[in-house]
Amino acid sequence: MNQSREIQLAARPHGEPKPEDFRLVEAEVPDPEPGQLLVRNRWMSVDPYMRGRMNDVKSYVPPFQLDAPLEGGAVGQVVASADERFGEGQWVLHQLGWRELALVPAAAAQPIDPDLAPPSAFLGVLGMPGLTGYVGLFDIAGYQDGEAVFVSGAAGAVGSLVGQLAKLRGSFVVGSAGSAEKLAWLKEELGFDAVFNYKDDACHRLLRAAAPDGIDVYFDNVGGEHLEAALGSLHDRGRVALCGAISTYNATELPPGPRGLEPTIVRKRLTLKGFIITDHFHRLQAFHQEVGPLVRDGLISYRETIVEGLDHAPDAFIGLLRGENVGKMVVEV
Amino acid sequence: MNQSREIQLAARPHGEPKPEDFRLVEAEVPDPEPGQLLVRNRWMSVDPYMRGRMNDVKSYVPPFQLDAPLEGGAVGQVVASADERFGEGQWVLHQLGWRELALVPAAAAQPIDPDLAPPSAFLGVLGMPGLTGYVGLFDIAGYQDGEAVFVSGAAGAVGSLVGQLAKLRGSFVVGSAGSAEKLAWLKEELGFDAVFNYKDDACHRLLRAAAPDGIDVYFDNVGGEHLEAALGSLHDRGRVALCGAISTYNATELPPGPRGLEPTIVRKRLTLKGFIITDHFHRLQAFHQEVGPLVRDGLISYRETIVEGLDHAPDAFIGLLRGENVGKMVVEV
Repeated sequence: MNQSREIQLAARPHGEPKPEDFRLVEAEVPDPEPGQLLVRNRWMSVDPYMRGRMNDVKSYVPPFQLDAPLEGGAVGQVVASADERFGEGQWVLHQLGWRELALVPAAAAQPIDPDLAPPSAFLGVLGMPGLTGYVGLFDIAGYQDGEAVFVSGAAGAVGSLVGQLAKLRGSFVVGSAGSAEKLAWLKEELGFDAVFNYKDDACHRLLRAAAPDGIDVYFDNVGGEHLEAALGSLHDRGRVALCGAISTYNATELPPGPRGLEPTIVRKRLTLKGFIITDHFHRLQAFHQEVGPLVRDGLISYRETIVEGLDHAPDAFIGLLRGENVGKMVVEV
Repeated sequence: MNQSREIQLAARPHGEPKPEDFRLVEAEVPDPEPGQLLVRNRWMSVDPYMRGRMNDVKSYVPPFQLDAPLEGGAVGQVVASADERFGEGQWVLHQLGWRELALVPAAAAQPIDPDLAPPSAFLGVLGMPGLTGYVGLFDIAGYQDGEAVFVSGAAGAVGSLVGQLAKLRGSFVVGSAGSAEKLAWLKEELGFDAVFNYKDDACHRLLRAAAPDGIDVYFDNVGGEHLEAALGSLHDRGRVALCGAISTYNATELPPGPRGLEPTIVRKRLTLKGFIITDHFHRLQAFHQEVGPLVRDGLISYRETIVEGLDHAPDAFIGLLRGENVGKMVVEV
């Protein structure tokens, strides 16, 4: 047996999660059986979608269980292998985060190349959030080179890649975020054409001022007022990729939909399309081939907000939902 | 000069149109110049989209002008022709309704075949409303044979065709309407599997009871509560064709959007797509080839609510927005 620690779900959050909804627990992890790996997690991911799994409702992923460890993306090194494809010291990406030691089926572990980028990048710009931005922009929104793009949550792991991909293809790109630090990063380092802080005024006025000529594509990480504003600024035949609705995740009642939705969708012939990244893993290779070199060569930048220590993982998650991260929120285990 | 009468827009309606917003006027119509036809209108169409043109706002069709005759689909016979392609007595479909005599550019007149169906049918099941149902179901919603379909405004000219097309292809079809007479027609004559009166209860409860196994496609003529209900009943990867939002046309403020919209679209990977039929006239031939014989052979039924007399055209239009029609609302000029 190997001594480990893990974070369990102690209670299902009502509204915004509180520290008491989580519990740090000592755990014993057995040695690997054939086909298993024992992995020492080095970094783990906190992602907005995890909030939905904390509710006891049917969704595209099953809910987290009470008094059991949480799960999610993590990268670490193999410390004991019972599968010939993996040796000790190998870096792997897997889905058993929120713990120090993980017993991972070899089939569920993906080797990663630490020479392409630091391993933690495989939780962000080169991982599921990056793939989400790539698939959402190209496959879901049907973005064409040069179209004007608006992305909300633009300083997050997904949004910051969406904006940079569109900039590299000659687009006018506008992004929204919730702090001066985020806006400065978007404008000065990532080259966004226009940015706004959604806390400053009504979203539709801010967007209208930032993109007076309108937009063709809206990549929605936020929902709510942001979507309503985008509907007003979209050109005829505009498309919306709905990736998430972080503004609603802590809601305890059904949030109202955007006003004027149906007449606007009809009049402008808009398309709104939701997607879940787990349906699109077949695009992972194309994504890595295209975006990997751009990251390696510095043509695409990324940032991480790193929280130290497994015991602070709940704080990292709560902070993520409050927008306290710039770029990918990662916990160094 | 030829004596005629026409209906003019006397005032832009605020909310529900009133009779005083319209005016019956004597008019003189000149004889046709080369390339023109003088047409005596026999039937004219009133359609929900006309309400939008009565507002002075930019939209996909320009607004109607005050103190000028209204426009819209009409069928009639040529009484004087200055174009060699048309002879006297020829039945034509054109866009200068709301008047007795119309001076129509020959290029804007479409010959119709009265042996295929009575001429008034070219304003409904074989006209723009029919094409709207056909394009919306197949091209916009991407309907596949056998998928479960919900259509609102099901007893209207568009909805009644949508439901019958899906029934002919083996689908479970549920329709909503606002009177017992309409429901009886849908159920007993058109073969809908389930129907409900949306005035009876909350729409989401009525739909859930009518289609307990859920739906794959929603054809939306109504918007509002109907759309919210459909979002709740759609299966994963369901599609919504947004054709119109008659529940909002008389609204004087932006109507609230469906609650829970964004999380539902994401979780179920839904697609919502608006369309305007004028973008899809290239499908007219395919539509006539497929649906024309079905109508001729009685495999598709249709009904008309005929209002007599041009002077009652405003009442017909007001009644249409109140849902007083079963099938296509037509004015016999």
